[in-house]
This record gives sequence, structure tokens and C-alpha cells, in this order.
Amino acid sequence: MSEGNEARVATDELGAFIARAFAAAGIGERDADLLAELMVRADLRGSDTHGVFRLPLYVRRIKAGGVNVKPNIRIVSERPAAALVDGDNAMGHLVMHFAVQTAIAKARQSGVAWVGARMSNHAGPAALYAMMPLAHDMIGLYLAVGNNNHLPPWGGSDLLLGTNPIAVAIPAGEEPPVVMDMAPTVAAFGKVRLAQQRNEQMPVGWMIGRDGKPLTDPKRADEGFLLPIGDYKGYALSLVIGLLAGVLNRAAFGKDVSDMVREPGARTNTGHAIVAISIEAFSPVAEFKRSVDTAIRAIRGSEKLPGTARIYLPGGQSHEKFLDRTANGIPIGKALRDSLDTVARELGVAPLT
Amino acid sequence: MSEGNEARVATDELGAFIARAFAAAGIGERDADLLAELMVRADLRGSDTHGVFRLPLYVRRIKAGGVNVKPNIRIVSERPAAALVDGDNAMGHLVMHFAVQTAIAKARQSGVAWVGARMSNHAGPAALYAMMPLAHDMIGLYLAVGNNNHLPPWGGSDLLLGTNPIAVAIPAGEEPPVVMDMAPTVAAFGKVRLAQQRNEQMPVGWMIGRDGKPLTDPKRADEGFLLPIGDYKGYALSLVIGLLAGVLNRAAFGKDVSDMVREPGARTNTGHAIVAISIEAFSPVAEFKRSVDTAIRAIRGSEKLPGTARIYLPGGQSHEKFLDRTANGIPIGKALRDSLDTVARELGVAPLT
Repeated sequence: MSEGNEARVATDELGAFIARAFAAAGIGERDADLLAELMVRADLRGSDTHGVFRLPLYVRRIKAGGVNVKPNIRIVSERPAAALVDGDNAMGHLVMHFAVQTAIAKARQSGVAWVGARMSNHAGPAALYAMMPLAHDMIGLYLAVGNNNHLPPWGGSDLLLGTNPIAVAIPAGEEPPVVMDMAPTVAAFGKVRLAQQRNEQMPVGWMIGRDGKPLTDPKRADEGFLLPIGDYKGYALSLVIGLLAGVLNRAAFGKDVSDMVREPGARTNTGHAIVAISIEAFSPVAEFKRSVDTAIRAIRGSEKLPGTARIYLPGGQSHEKFLDRTANGIPIGKALRDSLDTVARELGVAPLT
Repeated sequence: MSEGNEARVATDELGAFIARAFAAAGIGERDADLLAELMVRADLRGSDTHGVFRLPLYVRRIKAGGVNVKPNIRIVSERPAAALVDGDNAMGHLVMHFAVQTAIAKARQSGVAWVGARMSNHAGPAALYAMMPLAHDMIGLYLAVGNNNHLPPWGGSDLLLGTNPIAVAIPAGEEPPVVMDMAPTVAAFGKVRLAQQRNEQMPVGWMIGRDGKPLTDPKRADEGFLLPIGDYKGYALSLVIGLLAGVLNRAAFGKDVSDMVREPGARTNTGHAIVAISIEAFSPVAEFKRSVDTAIRAIRGSEKLPGTARIYLPGGQSHEKFLDRTANGIPIGKALRDSLDTVARELGVAPLT
């Protein structure tokens, strides 16, 4: 990490800026505050492409009429341990915050709850929602349909599948929680964009072209597609996540997925799902957390392969960023700062200081 | 498939043989019949290493006192949408059959249910249990802790993780269901054993040695370990599945996992989890199934990459085997037939005819 080179912005400052930007874009004050809190939380854990980085895109979508700024987010189908939330085309963060609160309340009563969401939008990093149940001594599992299709079925070339993310967060005792957050592709599309910006070639294994051959020039990314992890296994994972988070919720899937970047005024009908699992339904909470600590320490203490300096747990690097950024602020590079200044000018609000 | 070369055995014949073998080994008649039905169902869908192939091992474990033949399988913790089943060290198939029935009944009331199991044993293929909710217009999701550790943490060499499987089964309308059943490793350990038997080298990417270098000689498999799919992603998947199916249920995980083959008399305390999701809690069932059909057909109809003859859906090849084997019987090769004859002799029951 070369974070030392980038200017840091205090968490409060960044949150206040995001909130005033959304308020100026027409979002109600309470919703704007909640959005700011959640986006800052994403940046604190190092989700640099899924936090404030997305603010210019979100504002562009709001201005283009692609997102509803005064939504009526509500439950449209309900069972003791299940619900379907209609997001009324709100910002995805607001929809998922509502969905997770619903899941936590239901899991407290029923032991477990699965809440789906439809008519939503991009909601930031998957881990953000999987982690919300942790404070309630619950495990969180989050699934979503990605907001554009970069993946064909295995053996095919039609872009019918997304880099549909799955995240699972499991609380520990003295150790940081285990937080897995992954797309079923070898590389995220953000990495391709980064290679493009930096004029670098991509390693073999990230993408292939329509000829089935490796594609290593990121400028030609539109001519090919991402490769799934484990070949047909990653394809199956993406499909299953898409069916569970999309089709089950009557949200967009396959050809109905619209590209949120290229079509800023289009409704995405994004689908997500959150599962909350109350630990005490299965095991005494303290015993469970001790056992997770034991598992974490055994893994961290494993004999290392030559060339390995440290063994990380899933979410371990994000946790270190969280500690650093909570203490020292969030790094905002020059390019991002410029784009946020542009947003501020366009919205007529005070820029980030 | 070279199934044409192998003698076929009628489903009923095979089931009757399995049932009389288990009964002779001391298992009650109803349990023996259920085991036979489930193991034959595994073979019908082509799980050749997880059906009757395992009978000699199962009988060896029963004789060694590693499995309880008169178990009291029961719920030890219960919520409206959650339960923990104690398998009392029964055959895993019996424990999971009980757990899935519990999950289906609860999901009918609550919309969704998550049932964990502890003190269980190897239960055959993951898809077997994920598919059970299908007949009730439910989606099934199954997780388990593998019965031996072939995987270290990413960057490490201590064998702390298993090829912990995940299976998801999703019903369609006119199309076969989508059935994903995968371990988070590039190759299953069974493939390594097969290469060993056939005196073949393994491709680079299946295993590495403790030196971190590719291991391609299957005779040296004990000196190395399987590689996870997507590098650290498959490691994270295996860990998370192990925590959810193992630690949450107070079942074996990490160093506590005993090798069921090498220690036939040891209790494995195998952990599993099954989630049943009632479709009607989220969407009209007929509409959902039509949408899944549409998704399946779009994927199957995708433009193909050069060299691809057909695009398969997850579970598609197993479904074709199911149709063929239901009509023509289950192929039993000479080596397997010999080992079943030995079991019959040892138990004093009539062999497979």
C-alpha cells in the first residue's frame, strides 16, 4: 500500500461532504446522512472502488433520473423468517440497510432470516451488509446481482452473467471477524480498469477473448470477458448467486441487467439477499466465539510456504486498513479529489476541505 | 463416458443388496432401506465415488465401532426457523435425511429454515441433500465439513481445511433443476486417487508441494496439498463453509477433523448444514419456474467459444446420467463388483446378482 503518499481526510469531514452532496441532489436529509455513514464505512475498510469513489456516478444517475430520491422502501411479501423488500428504485445502500434491519429483527425471533430485495441499485461493497448482523451476535451472508455482465456461461461468449458477489461475516471473540467478500471471477473488473489507466498488461488468466484465447491488453477489454474462478465452478457460483439474489426476488438477471455506468438514466432493478443467522440458536455465543478465535489462531500460526511473510484471514487486510484509517483518516488521491470537487461545483455545495 | 463397457445393475437389485448389507452389519431394517435408497440415488446421478462405491468403507467403519448402528437422532436446539440436530454418530445419510425433513417442515411455516447437524458422518454427495427440498417447491442449500483435510490456508502448509462442499439446487419448470455441487479446490481428491490408479501424471494447478512448487506425481500426493479455486478465494470459501457447517454446530473443524479412511474406528463428529427456502415466500412459484427456464435457455443458447460443442448448466450432466441410469441401470465395473462381493462374503449375505 502506498497510502502514505495520499492526503488523508478525516472521517467526519468526508461523511459531511457526502451528506451535503446527496442532499443537494434531492435526497432527504436522514437518507443522505445514512448514505454518508455507509459509504464512509466502506472507505474505512479499504473498499476504495466501492465507497466515495462512486459518488460522482451516483450523483450522475440521480440527475439522469435513474434513481428515486424520495422512495417508499417497503416489505411486499413476508413470512416469520423471510421477506421481500421492494426498494422503489432507491439508492441501494438505503434498500439494503432496511433489508438487513428486517433480517436481524426476524432472526432474533426465528433464529434465522432470509430477506431479498428488488428494485434496488448498486449498494457498495458486499461486506458492508454481511457485517451488519455481527453486532447482534449474528452471522451475515449477502448475495447480489452485479450491475453489469462481464461473464459468459462456461464455454460460451454471450455476456449473461455478472461478477455477482458473495460475502459472509462471522464474529470472533478477541480476534477480528472473518469477513469473506468475493466475486466468482479471477479478477474484478475494477482491476482491469486500473491496468488500463496505468498502461499495464494483464496477466494471463484474467480475461479471454471471443476466440477463447488469453486477452492481456486491458484496452481491448470490451472484446473479451473475465474468467471465472475454478473454470466451470465460478460460472456455477455466479449463476446460482444470480438466481438467488435476482430471479427469486423478481429482480434483473441475464439480458435484463442494464449497465449502470453506460445507462445512467435506466432503472437497474438490482437484486440482493441478506441472511442473518443468530448464533445462540445453534451454540452458546461465548463458546462459538472462542472456537472461532481458536480456528483463526491455528490458521494464522500455520507453517508458511517459502516466500510467504504472513498468513491472512479473510477480511484481515481490510481490518488493518480499518484500524489505520479510523485513526489517521481516509486517503483521497488527486484524481478522486478532483472528481469530488467537480461534483461539489455542479451541485453548488462546499467542497471537501 | 465409456459406460457402455460396464455391466449394468438394476436399481432395485442394487438397493436390495445395499439394504441387506447394512442390515447384516447391524443397522435396523428401516434405516438400512433408507440408506439403500439414498445411496442408489447418488449413483443414479453419476456420483460414482459417493454412492455404492463407499459401501465397503462404511461397513468397515461400522465394524470398527466408528459408526453407531442404533442411533437416537434428535433435535437438541430449536427455533421457528432454525434447529441443531445431534446425529448420535449415525450414518451421515440418516442424520441429513432427518435434518432436511426438519428444514422443509420449518420452511413451510417460516418461509426459510436453516438446520445444522453435528455428531454425523460422511453422507454421500452434497447434491443429494440440496435436491430434497425441490419436490416441495423449495430451493436447497447444503454445506459440509469434508472428512479429511487436504487444504492449507493460503500461503501456508498446515492441513487445516477440507474440500468442504457447497451445493445449491434450484427448481425449474420444464427444464431440469439447476444443481451446483462443488468443492472449493481445483480438483477433488478422488481425481488424484484416480490418476494414481491409472499411473498418470496430474496437470499443473491441481496440487503443490510443501516447497510451493507444482506437484504432478499423484504417488507423491501425501507430500503436498490441493490448490483452492481462485487462490485465496477458494481458501476463504473452504474456511467459511467449515465455520458454518462445523464450528457453528460444535462439529469437528481444523485439527479435530479425523480421517475417516485411516481411522475407521474414530468418531468423525461431521458437521453439515441445510437451508430450505420456500419459493412462494418471495415469488409466485409458477412465475419463478418460468423465469428459471428462461435463464437456463438463454445460457444454453449462448454463442459458443471455438471448440465448445455444448454449454451445460450446473447439474446438467448429472441429469443426463440420471435419465440413462434410471432406464438402463447403474454401471458397476469389475473392481467395484469384486469389492462388493468381498463385503457380501464378509457379512454372510447374498452377493449382488
